[in-house]
Amino acid sequence: MVERNQPTLVAVLGGGQLGRMLALAGVPLGLRFRFLDPHPDASAGEVGDLVVGNLGDEQMLAAVADGAAVVTYEWEGVPADAARFLEQRVLVRPGTRSLTVAQDRLAEKEIFRRLGIATPQFAAVDRADDLDAAIGAVGGLPAVLKTRRGGYDGKGQRVLYTAGDAIGAWDHLGGVPAILEAHVMFDRELSVLAVRDADGGIACWPIAENHHSEGILRLTRAPAPNLDDDLQARAETIAAAVLADLGHVGVLAVELFDVGGELLANEIAPRVHNSGHWTIEGAVTSQFENHLRAILDRPLGPTTVRGVSVMVNCIGGIPDRTAVTAIPGAYLHDYGKVPRPGRKVGHITVIAPDNRSLEQNLDRVLALVGNALPTQPG
Amino acid sequence: MVERNQPTLVAVLGGGQLGRMLALAGVPLGLRFRFLDPHPDASAGEVGDLVVGNLGDEQMLAAVADGAAVVTYEWEGVPADAARFLEQRVLVRPGTRSLTVAQDRLAEKEIFRRLGIATPQFAAVDRADDLDAAIGAVGGLPAVLKTRRGGYDGKGQRVLYTAGDAIGAWDHLGGVPAILEAHVMFDRELSVLAVRDADGGIACWPIAENHHSEGILRLTRAPAPNLDDDLQARAETIAAAVLADLGHVGVLAVELFDVGGELLANEIAPRVHNSGHWTIEGAVTSQFENHLRAILDRPLGPTTVRGVSVMVNCIGGIPDRTAVTAIPGAYLHDYGKVPRPGRKVGHITVIAPDNRSLEQNLDRVLALVGNALPTQPG
Repeated sequence: MVERNQPTLVAVLGGGQLGRMLALAGVPLGLRFRFLDPHPDASAGEVGDLVVGNLGDEQMLAAVADGAAVVTYEWEGVPADAARFLEQRVLVRPGTRSLTVAQDRLAEKEIFRRLGIATPQFAAVDRADDLDAAIGAVGGLPAVLKTRRGGYDGKGQRVLYTAGDAIGAWDHLGGVPAILEAHVMFDRELSVLAVRDADGGIACWPIAENHHSEGILRLTRAPAPNLDDDLQARAETIAAAVLADLGHVGVLAVELFDVGGELLANEIAPRVHNSGHWTIEGAVTSQFENHLRAILDRPLGPTTVRGVSVMVNCIGGIPDRTAVTAIPGAYLHDYGKVPRPGRKVGHITVIAPDNRSLEQNLDRVLALVGNALPTQPG
Repeated sequence: MVERNQPTLVAVLGGGQLGRMLALAGVPLGLRFRFLDPHPDASAGEVGDLVVGNLGDEQMLAAVADGAAVVTYEWEGVPADAARFLEQRVLVRPGTRSLTVAQDRLAEKEIFRRLGIATPQFAAVDRADDLDAAIGAVGGLPAVLKTRRGGYDGKGQRVLYTAGDAIGAWDHLGGVPAILEAHVMFDRELSVLAVRDADGGIACWPIAENHHSEGILRLTRAPAPNLDDDLQARAETIAAAVLADLGHVGVLAVELFDVGGELLANEIAPRVHNSGHWTIEGAVTSQFENHLRAILDRPLGPTTVRGVSVMVNCIGGIPDRTAVTAIPGAYLHDYGKVPRPGRKVGHITVIAPDNRSLEQNLDRVLALVGNALPTQPG
C-alpha cells in the first residue's frame, strides 16, 4: 500500500441535505466527511461515510468524531448534551452555546433584547396562569403562542385571535413552557446569513428575501429586492452582535421581519440555512464552503454575489428533470430523498445577470415546481 | 424500509479525478455513480461506489454496469474490447468508435484529413524502412516520431533533428507502429471543448489557451487571449465535424496549434478534459454537467462564460491550502491523491470579471504553485 495523503476529516452531526451540500463543497477542498444520522438512507451518505445511530448515543458520537479535525452539525435539534460530550474530546464548532440558545425561543429573544436588537414584543409563558399577563405584555391580540423548544416549519405554534383562544392553544401545544409573541404585520421576511471565524472575523452575504407558505420556506430572492446599503448595514450589525455574543464559529442565519423598513429579529439558525442555498452558484463563496473554512481556521472567502439569484424549494417531489434542465441559468439540486408530501427533497436556483433577465426563467421554474407563490415583494 | 426514490446510476470506467469531478457535478442532479478502477484508493471512490478491478476484466465490467442507465469513461486508455463488451449489454456513451480513434494517433490524423481539417503534415511509419520516406512526406526535419498507441503527457514520442536520429528514436520507442509528424513551430496551443447530444445538437465552450511544460499541461486560460468570433467559429467547425463523424455523444476536446492564426488539429480526447476544468466555476454549465446531460438525454446547458478564468494544475503536490484560500476568486480542487513528482494532484481556478483584475490574484497562485511558467501568450 502506498502512503495516503492524510486527509482532513470533518464529522457532521446529522446527515440530511445540509450535510450533503457541506460535503459537496468540501470534497473539492480535499476534505473527507463522516456523518451521524439515525436514518440509513440519509441524504449525505452518498458523499461521505455514514454512521447510522442516534444523535444522543455517546458510543455513536465517539465513533463519528474519532480522528475528526472538527465536529460540526447541520441540524439545531442535536441534543446539547451530545455537543457537550463531544466538546470534552474534540473541537466542536459552532459551540454548545449556539445550540442551546437556538433551541430555546425565549433564550433567543432574550439575547436579542440584551444586545439592543429590536424584536417582536414577547413574554414568557411558563404556565397557563401566565397567559393573561403575557397578552398584556405583548400589546394585546392577535399574538402567537410558541413552544420554547421544538417546532420547525411552522409546527409548535398557534395564533391567538381572542382571549378565548389562549387556553385551548396552550393545551394544544401540550402545556409546555412557551413564549407569546406579538403577531407582527410585517411587509416581508428577510434573512441575513453571516459567517464568523475563530478570530472574530465576520463576513455577511447580502440579505435575502424569503417567501413561506404553510410554514415552509418556498422561495428566496438574493439580494433582496430594494436592498440598500443602510438596510444591509443594519442587518449585518444584528448578525455581528449575535455571532460575537455566542462566540459562534461558522455560519449563522438570522431571520428578520421588515416592518416599514424597521428590522425585527425573529430567530436564529446556528448553521448553514435554506435561505442561503442560492450562494452555491450565486456568490463567490458559498455558505457551505465558508462554514468549512471557518471551522477549519482557513481564511473566509468573498461573500459577493455573481448576479441575482432566486432559490425555489422543491417540496414533496422533484419536478420533471428534463424540463428543469432546459431552463437557462437554472441549477437543480436533488437531495436524493424519498418524496413525501411537505418534504423538502431539492431546490432549484435560477441565476441571471439582472432581475429582468431572471424573471422569465424563474416563471418557467415556478410553473414546473407548482409553487403558486407571490414572487414579487408584497 | 421506505421505498427509495429510484436514482439514476451512471457507471464510469476509470476512477481518477475526472470521474470524481463528474460525480461532484452529478450528485446534485440526483445521480449516483459507480466506478471501475484497478486502484483501491482511486480518487473518485469518495463520491461514489468503487469497484476495484481491471478495466479488461469482463466480470468486473459486467458488475460495474449492472443497473446503470449509461456507461461512460473518464480515460481514453479503456480497452476498446471492454467498451464493445459493454455495448452489447448497456448504453455506452461515447461509443467505441470514439475510443478506438482516440487511441490511434494515425487514425485521428486520417479523420482530420478526410474531414478537410488542417493538421501538421504526417506519415505512417509501420516499420523502420518507412522512416526515410516519412521524413520526406512531412517536409523534412525536425519532425516528431510518436507511437500510434499509448503515450500521454509527452511520453511515447521523440523529436528527430537529423536523419541520424531516426533509427535510434524508432528503437527507443520499441519498434512499434508509429506516426511521424512535422515539428510545427506554433505560436500557441489551444483547445476547443465541445459537447454533442444524441440528436446531434452541439455546444462549444470558448477556446482555451494551454501552456505545457515537460509534456504536462500546467496552465489554461479561458477564453483564450485575443479570441475573436472568427477563430472561435473555425474551431467550432472543426469540433463539430469530428463529433458528427464519430457519432460522439458527450464531451470531446480537440487540441489545436495556432500557427499565425491558422488552426492545425493535433489530437482529440474523447472525454472531459483537463483544459476544461475552468468550466466548473467559469462557465454557466461545466464540462462535467454537460457531459452527463448529453449521455442521459437531458438538454445541454449554456456554455457561456462567467468572467475570465485561468486554471493552474498542481503537479506533484498541493500548495499551502490556507495561502490558496486567502486569494480572492481562487478555487482549490484537491483530488485527494497521494503526491508524487509529476503527478496531477489538483488544480486551482482563478476567476475574475476581467483580465486586469485577474492577473494579480493569478500571480499569487503561481507563486504558491511554483509553476514558473510564461502566463502571457507568447
